[in-house]
Amino acid sequence: MRHDSPQPDTGSRLDADRAHLARRYQAVRGQTRALAAPLSPEDCQAQSMADASPAKWHLAHVTWFFETFVLEPFEPDFKPFNPAFRVLYNSYYNGVGEQFSRPQRGLVTRPDLAEVWRWREQVDERITQLIAHTDSADALRLIAMGLHHEQQHQELLLTDIKHLLSINPLNPAYQRAWPLVSVAPVPTRWVERDGGLVEIGHAGEGFAFDNESPRHRQWLEPHALMNRLVTHGEWLDFVRDGGYTDPRWWLAAGWDWVRTQGIRAPLYWTLPRDPQALPTVFTLNGAVPLDPHTPVVHVSYFEADAFARWTAATHADQAGARLPTEAEWEAAAASLPVQGNLQEAGALHPMPARAGGGLLQMFGDVWEWTASSYSPYPGYQVAEGAVGEYNGKFMVNQTVLRGGSCATPASHLRASYRNFFPTDARWQFSGLRLAKTLIS
Amino acid sequence: MRHDSPQPDTGSRLDADRAHLARRYQAVRGQTRALAAPLSPEDCQAQSMADASPAKWHLAHVTWFFETFVLEPFEPDFKPFNPAFRVLYNSYYNGVGEQFSRPQRGLVTRPDLAEVWRWREQVDERITQLIAHTDSADALRLIAMGLHHEQQHQELLLTDIKHLLSINPLNPAYQRAWPLVSVAPVPTRWVERDGGLVEIGHAGEGFAFDNESPRHRQWLEPHALMNRLVTHGEWLDFVRDGGYTDPRWWLAAGWDWVRTQGIRAPLYWTLPRDPQALPTVFTLNGAVPLDPHTPVVHVSYFEADAFARWTAATHADQAGARLPTEAEWEAAAASLPVQGNLQEAGALHPMPARAGGGLLQMFGDVWEWTASSYSPYPGYQVAEGAVGEYNGKFMVNQTVLRGGSCATPASHLRASYRNFFPTDARWQFSGLRLAKTLIS
Amino acid sequence: MRHDSPQPDTGSRLDADRAHLARRYQAVRGQTRALAAPLSPEDCQAQSMADASPAKWHLAHVTWFFETFVLEPFEPDFKPFNPAFRVLYNSYYNGVGEQFSRPQRGLVTRPDLAEVWRWREQVDERITQLIAHTDSADALRLIAMGLHHEQQHQELLLTDIKHLLSINPLNPAYQRAWPLVSVAPVPTRWVERDGGLVEIGHAGEGFAFDNESPRHRQWLEPHALMNRLVTHGEWLDFVRDGGYTDPRWWLAAGWDWVRTQGIRAPLYWTLPRDPQALPTVFTLNGAVPLDPHTPVVHVSYFEADAFARWTAATHADQAGARLPTEAEWEAAAASLPVQGNLQEAGALHPMPARAGGGLLQMFGDVWEWTASSYSPYPGYQVAEGAVGEYNGKFMVNQTVLRGGSCATPASHLRASYRNFFPTDARWQFSGLRLAKTLIS
Amino acid sequence: MRHDSPQPDTGSRLDADRAHLARRYQAVRGQTRALAAPLSPEDCQAQSMADASPAKWHLAHVTWFFETFVLEPFEPDFKPFNPAFRVLYNSYYNGVGEQFSRPQRGLVTRPDLAEVWRWREQVDERITQLIAHTDSADALRLIAMGLHHEQQHQELLLTDIKHLLSINPLNPAYQRAWPLVSVAPVPTRWVERDGGLVEIGHAGEGFAFDNESPRHRQWLEPHALMNRLVTHGEWLDFVRDGGYTDPRWWLAAGWDWVRTQGIRAPLYWTLPRDPQALPTVFTLNGAVPLDPHTPVVHVSYFEADAFARWTAATHADQAGARLPTEAEWEAAAASLPVQGNLQEAGALHPMPARAGGGLLQMFGDVWEWTASSYSPYPGYQVAEGAVGEYNGKFMVNQTVLRGGSCATPASHLRASYRNFFPTDARWQFSGLRLAKTLIS
Repeated sequence: MRHDSPQPDTGSRLDADRAHLARRYQAVRGQTRALAAPLSPEDCQAQSMADASPAKWHLAHVTWFFETFVLEPFEPDFKPFNPAFRVLYNSYYNGVGEQFSRPQRGLVTRPDLAEVWRWREQVDERITQLIAHTDSADALRLIAMGLHHEQQHQELLLTDIKHLLSINPLNPAYQRAWPLVSVAPVPTRWVERDGGLVEIGHAGEGFAFDNESPRHRQWLEPHALMNRLVTHGEWLDFVRDGGYTDPRWWLAAGWDWVRTQGIRAPLYWTLPRDPQALPTVFTLNGAVPLDPHTPVVHVSYFEADAFARWTAATHADQAGARLPTEAEWEAAAASLPVQGNLQEAGALHPMPARAGGGLLQMFGDVWEWTASSYSPYPGYQVAEGAVGEYNGKFMVNQTVLRGGSCATPASHLRASYRNFFPTDARWQFSGLRLAKTLIS
Repeated sequence: MRHDSPQPDTGSRLDADRAHLARRYQAVRGQTRALAAPLSPEDCQAQSMADASPAKWHLAHVTWFFETFVLEPFEPDFKPFNPAFRVLYNSYYNGVGEQFSRPQRGLVTRPDLAEVWRWREQVDERITQLIAHTDSADALRLIAMGLHHEQQHQELLLTDIKHLLSINPLNPAYQRAWPLVSVAPVPTRWVERDGGLVEIGHAGEGFAFDNESPRHRQWLEPHALMNRLVTHGEWLDFVRDGGYTDPRWWLAAGWDWVRTQGIRAPLYWTLPRDPQALPTVFTLNGAVPLDPHTPVVHVSYFEADAFARWTAATHADQAGARLPTEAEWEAAAASLPVQGNLQEAGALHPMPARAGGGLLQMFGDVWEWTASSYSPYPGYQVAEGAVGEYNGKFMVNQTVLRGGSCATPASHLRASYRNFFPTDARWQFSGLRLAKTLIS
Repeated sequence: MRHDSPQPDTGSRLDADRAHLARRYQAVRGQTRALAAPLSPEDCQAQSMADASPAKWHLAHVTWFFETFVLEPFEPDFKPFNPAFRVLYNSYYNGVGEQFSRPQRGLVTRPDLAEVWRWREQVDERITQLIAHTDSADALRLIAMGLHHEQQHQELLLTDIKHLLSINPLNPAYQRAWPLVSVAPVPTRWVERDGGLVEIGHAGEGFAFDNESPRHRQWLEPHALMNRLVTHGEWLDFVRDGGYTDPRWWLAAGWDWVRTQGIRAPLYWTLPRDPQALPTVFTLNGAVPLDPHTPVVHVSYFEADAFARWTAATHADQAGARLPTEAEWEAAAASLPVQGNLQEAGALHPMPARAGGGLLQMFGDVWEWTASSYSPYPGYQVAEGAVGEYNGKFMVNQTVLRGGSCATPASHLRASYRNFFPTDARWQFSGLRLAKTLIS
Repeated sequence: MRHDSPQPDTGSRLDADRAHLARRYQAVRGQTRALAAPLSPEDCQAQSMADASPAKWHLAHVTWFFETFVLEPFEPDFKPFNPAFRVLYNSYYNGVGEQFSRPQRGLVTRPDLAEVWRWREQVDERITQLIAHTDSADALRLIAMGLHHEQQHQELLLTDIKHLLSINPLNPAYQRAWPLVSVAPVPTRWVERDGGLVEIGHAGEGFAFDNESPRHRQWLEPHALMNRLVTHGEWLDFVRDGGYTDPRWWLAAGWDWVRTQGIRAPLYWTLPRDPQALPTVFTLNGAVPLDPHTPVVHVSYFEADAFARWTAATHADQAGARLPTEAEWEAAAASLPVQGNLQEAGALHPMPARAGGGLLQMFGDVWEWTASSYSPYPGYQVAEGAVGEYNGKFMVNQTVLRGGSCATPASHLRASYRNFFPTDARWQFSGLRLAKTLIS
């Protein structure tokens, strides 16, 4: 994203862009409103852990992004809705200035939710005007970026509210979209892929984040990817086989995490007294019995990696199982359409893989942990200005996830899209697909 | 408080009690409603630290007390408003059963505030019926206790909301009752008192908590109490004289606390860059310049004790200054009326001592730290049943405060009333009065 | 201790004092050497927790006390052994200046143990000279104080090395003085005592710490003390009756401590798999089976208090059982000789109460937790100078213990002696005796 | 390392191997003795942080490795020196069984140092016999591995003892090998290198750890490496330019680390009051003024990365500066001899780059942080058995360092050698060399 370079746009192209952007702006901002509709002012206030944010904060912060990065530089006679919000809703942009303490976001009770909505409405009005009248292609590009930013926060709003509601002993549901149809997933099957030089990363038209660039070459050994995601039923075998109590399967840091945190199952599971009974899982549709056919979700990298080692050692037909690298995943996904169980499907929970050939569930259902650390691509350049803090400064001690989840909007995804979280994070919709190296 | 003993009440006496209790019930519960009126659902949701509770929790917990300790045993055909609330709003009564995790009270967004109000209304209706129709003197006594319990939580609601609002960088005010009239306080003067055997503790008619009993004898040496509270201006001298950076004045544990917590002034002060300028203080009326004439407030026991040592060493006319013992305080207060700057005054902030002889400001303004650890009186008996957990189990590692504050309801206080907090607590309206031993 | 006041000593009196002090100096310093004899340089280096100190540190610090408080002011042409030791071995005297970080004492490997012994020898030489030649009664008084200080550290050296060795999975013994003769203790019997005005605190000749002064009056209600200490066998009944899992017996802070620390038995117990088998306990004589006849030891105040409540509720003949106050204990001990199972006995472990009338085991075996917070006596004055930091600044959030233990030297004790530790401390030889209030 | 596979060794080849191994065994074990010679029993006992181990523990653990992995399976009639040591000196091998708590290693005072030396001597005797008489090539291979393992611990012994001594306010020196000759280092110069497919990783004869395998292809873009290491003088410019207080240079996690840990300079620096004066640095030769000509050392990955960003932005001739990847580093080092300022040089401190062409200081002086996360090479297989825990289980959340340091033995290194530490580790001899991508 280089929003400072000159652009020889013709007028008609710009007008078409304007119209498209105006429609997309209405759609994305409207979808955020729809996602917040089931939530009370109380629900929107609370912050259940330092990694999560209150829903009210998400609603305000995405508006802050438009006000700070678009209106402030491009609106004639810019005047902020409330100057104090510049600090209050700055997430982590040192280039913009001070930030309010992250773990205390849930303690800011004023402005209340109604005032945040008024702010959003005022900014919507002003952005709509700007789209209609600005001559700046940079402004339009930043608005497009702001919408992708808002879509990221739509997913976070859902995962954060899920975490919050899970703490309430009354087991409240965010929605009642259940029941899912439970069908046995297709059998596992290795899909083999050649090695050699591949190109990965974003190129060409269309929006992408800076961390997807530059497109570059990478050498792959011959390998195979599993045709579908790992399921809850397969995970239950791992649990019942003592997977969480056997250090052989775990990275040293993972074993330490399991023991010091008392981890015995994925997040949101309640294990039954009778080990042969089904666990209960908390979902955005309330607490339900675990469905073995659905993809496993809310596991950390440590757990995903341990599961792969256990599978490799205990399943003869899956010897050599490991997590895929991000290059293997992207090379395989590059030719597939972005479709699947995404936010628009409304389930907000992963669903069984339906019959089909080739690679299934590559997009949607759950983010897939890869074996790749989150690092800059060769030749990566950070964007200038505060927006340059968007991605680059997080490129250490995190691991890449690919493919999007049941909470990701379809229009937000690409094969080159890189998500990333620390190896112990579990509150995102994170799962896994197995891979293996083919020995020639 | 022995609510299980038989009572030979006559009918007419009981009827008079009923009428009095019904009026008091309406008054106390109405006052709670009035105190919550300035607060939004968001304000009532948040919990700013583990020691504090959300306002919504206070509103629910005091209703839980009536439902659990009064309606459950005494109402015919008792049925709870919501059975899950029995655990959710139990504070610390192991005799009642499980308790929801205290530091997570701010994460319970459902029930929302409106439902808590509905619960309160239903319980008000049922308690009103019970008062009118029950034959049980125990039930009436427990209702009276529940009202005193609610008055305690009125004060906590105010101190907790003050702490919450203080974290908000927008400095929101709970009310706008300012300005106070600032007048120079009366000069300090030692009020001397004889030694000898005294009796302290509650006796006779009228409500008192079990920790005020039994009334018992205690030997006092001759001593003097200061005629009024220590002021902000006197405290400012302490600050400017380096009081917070000189270990000579501090208990070892206090010095450790000052250094590890970076304490430089009372809670809610913002020190100015220019040390000769006045600090800003956050109050329930918003952020204001410190008024040197008002009593110092929001200091810990460690600070109060250090101030006394500093005063003793640096003010020739106050040599020997120390904190009073609770027996010295109570013996002096026993004959004074319970009046002063209390909750009903509406200031919710301590005010200058007005002219007058004898001991001033004994009730109201600020709770006065004493030199006495919170221990059982000789012969103290814990009440039977879960209500017995009210006081006794906290009698360790806490220090007694006396006299009530600007947030305490007048009808809640007595000379024998014992409040108690850990030595590092500061978010209550806590201040001090000096004392000294008279050497014969 | 007022070492700055003029003293009209005659010459002969001073000479007698000199001779006595010289003998006592040799005896106490020699006993410290004897206690350290079984320890290797490695044993003397390690520090097992922040509350404990390495044996090498104890050996150095007591020498530091003589060098800093005696030689520095009173020795002509004073020159320190090593100027850097002034900071390195200062425990907590702010009046002397900086202190080395307490939790890092085990990391100071140089000076090594041999050099610390050389320092001790040099200081012994110089103090011996000073005793022989000084005209200052203050110097002699400070030396006497230094010896009492060293005796305190003798006990700490033993309790700290016990804690260190207990962590070693090889279960090493400090000494092999076992076996104790196990005999059934005398039966429990209440010894009744009148109420009324008593005097407690130190008066008259002889050394005492400042916290034992001034002697003062206190009112006592009629009460009884148990004739002997609580035994391990009685404690085992408490454990087997579920004492550590029932909140009814515990102060709120104690219950919190039990649960968060996972406390299930006194320190140094290893519970057997078979609940009817005897636990193993780690002692300075190695790991041995618990002897039910010996006094219980290494319990916290929280545990002692809980045991008393459990006893009161479950033993009809001990209804009303509680811990004694320090005034009750001292009034009862005032007329008893200081004798019992003390350091000189060499067992370094509590022993069964032998037959006899009256109050047994008042001195020695274990320090007895009292119900009294550690507070200044009325009219208490801190000594001037750095030595004034000895006691007074610790008078908060600690609880008084009385009577001395099997690790306390006999010549160090008095009926008025006040020991004090936080309510969760267990690594001292701490146990308990029951008391009750007599209701007239 | 696959020590379980059959090997068609001829007898004469085995005998040559035996002789070589016997000499190497004497040399390496003797060098460990020499490194420990300056240390007292006290020095060898203490553990200054959880990441470090006591020198006594290092001495015992490397002997444990030989006893457990070589003698136990291969010695006829194996009997351990002390069976308890199997648990006590197991570092992290779950396959061997339980492990003693790592942060408490400094508390095991028994066995004392003398007994650990006796253990070493006995094991030396037995291993020497085994080398002479065994028919097992696996045994010989495991002994070779044990020697490389011991060489790793030689370096750790030095870095751990440096950390321990640095805490002592007396600034004790491990050795007095000073002064180094301070000469201005050669000027910086970019050494350009072509892109394309390269092979990295170990292949062929000679010892290597499993994490260096398998040798595999990797695609590199054209790039340049700096001819020498970054110096203390260059780092001082970074400090004086406010490098530690400007968030622009730091990864988000690094900035958080800098602020919460109060980081202002590399480990072991004492900053002077006068910012233009030279800092003092603690070295194994005691505390000395910083020499600007020597390579910077004891910096974390966060600091190395921030320095590269600052250099790129402020030095026109070093635009694009970043850390090298491990593949770039290894491809460049593959043809260079393993020589430089290594452990054998005896300085135990980095030294200025002497004149010369090409890449200087690639081996020795300081470990060079790379931009590469520590991950398994494609097709990596963990060795079977407990020895398989050597490397693989640490492959997460660590970063690769290359090239060895002034504390690394020459015979321990290779171009393919991969060292790894967390991004905040600083107590190793860690520094950096700059690299950049060449844009075609």
